[in-house]
Amino acid sequence: MSTNTSQHISQQFEAELQDIRSRVLAMGGLVEQQVADALTALMAGDSELARQVIIQDEQVNHMEMLIDEECVQIIALRQPTAGDLRLVTAIFKTITDLERIGDEAQSIAKRALSLSVADRPKRNYSELSTLGSHARGILRDALDAFARLDVDAALSVAGQDSKKDDEYESIIRQLITYMMEDPRSISNVMDLIWSARSLERIGDHAHNLCEYVIYLVEGTDVRHLSVEKMEKVLDRD
Amino acid sequence: MSTNTSQHISQQFEAELQDIRSRVLAMGGLVEQQVADALTALMAGDSELARQVIIQDEQVNHMEMLIDEECVQIIALRQPTAGDLRLVTAIFKTITDLERIGDEAQSIAKRALSLSVADRPKRNYSELSTLGSHARGILRDALDAFARLDVDAALSVAGQDSKKDDEYESIIRQLITYMMEDPRSISNVMDLIWSARSLERIGDHAHNLCEYVIYLVEGTDVRHLSVEKMEKVLDRD
Repeated sequence: MSTNTSQHISQQFEAELQDIRSRVLAMGGLVEQQVADALTALMAGDSELARQVIIQDEQVNHMEMLIDEECVQIIALRQPTAGDLRLVTAIFKTITDLERIGDEAQSIAKRALSLSVADRPKRNYSELSTLGSHARGILRDALDAFARLDVDAALSVAGQDSKKDDEYESIIRQLITYMMEDPRSISNVMDLIWSARSLERIGDHAHNLCEYVIYLVEGTDVRHLSVEKMEKVLDRD
Repeated sequence: MSTNTSQHISQQFEAELQDIRSRVLAMGGLVEQQVADALTALMAGDSELARQVIIQDEQVNHMEMLIDEECVQIIALRQPTAGDLRLVTAIFKTITDLERIGDEAQSIAKRALSLSVADRPKRNYSELSTLGSHARGILRDALDAFARLDVDAALSVAGQDSKKDDEYESIIRQLITYMMEDPRSISNVMDLIWSARSLERIGDHAHNLCEYVIYLVEGTDVRHLSVEKMEKVLDRD
């Protein structure tokens, strides 16, 4: 193969990797919007917006399948190794988590729909709104860390996990208390509990995204490690 | 390369693929056992067994990381294409779902632990036990379909999904009724609701496993399709 041809192929490969990264970010952007819209629909009792989120989940699913296919094509045709291979395998996992965040957004939208016709107990919404902002923040920061391949940012996002878990536990306890005080509200409060659960799961998936960024950049699998241990393994303590 | 050398490499490669499949099945077996033990712990109020399930989740996580690493090595060193590549990418996804089934088993075990010290309302357990058997059955059949690379079996398991969803919805409705009738039971019943939710998720993950088997054998991505559409796409209607 001439130097020119091999250079041409390498440039084409670079462009493909760039393209697939952009697609992942576009999918991330859509998923972020889905979460934001689902929360707005829940808070405002906006059934039209809730319906839109439910329908748009199909687009998220479609993006996952396309990127998946592109990853397989790249492995088959380009036979990537080292960092390039890590990028492809990290993307494989990233889009699975993004798709599931989309599912959770859809699930919140379904609760919003059911609550939009109910006599909603307003007092429970502020706490859920805080958890919602927090989950959205973690997701945005995780996607930023992926966009910039920034390990420090990924570590910082992963470190917020326990705070989110505490917030979630406290909201669940509070919602259970509401149910005990007013058993007639149980069905409605259950919709809020499921929504809180979805927000907690969204945070968990965002945490996973950070682990893939660290793997991609450093080549180290930090799954199932505490943030302190991650820092140790990465020599950043 | 001599014919002998190339034959030797190809045999080694075959052995590697066989080895990784066995590992996935071993991981599947462990996860199946975790689900069974978590359910037993829940039904019998066996806190010792519950603790064991919680601790053993680490082993599931470890298996996932090892198989993951082996998949990456195979892609890097063997540069698989076509069916071999599909096997590797399907395994990539399969183990993610198996790991999450392990997480759900752990989550049920945690509820079992919390309920083992509570005055448990026995009447709710029979329905949960039915849902549990059903989820275990789906998981076992999905793993069998993977072991035998049996598309028809995979389709048949996938077809049980809506039945499982109906069962789940009905149990949740019933548990909510119990809470309304006896608000003092709310905390306990919530543990049952979370357990039911975990069983439902386990069924969903098992459904995903079937989709990967179909992809692996047929090369067709059937995610997000109804079973009727799957059969149509695969020309089996």
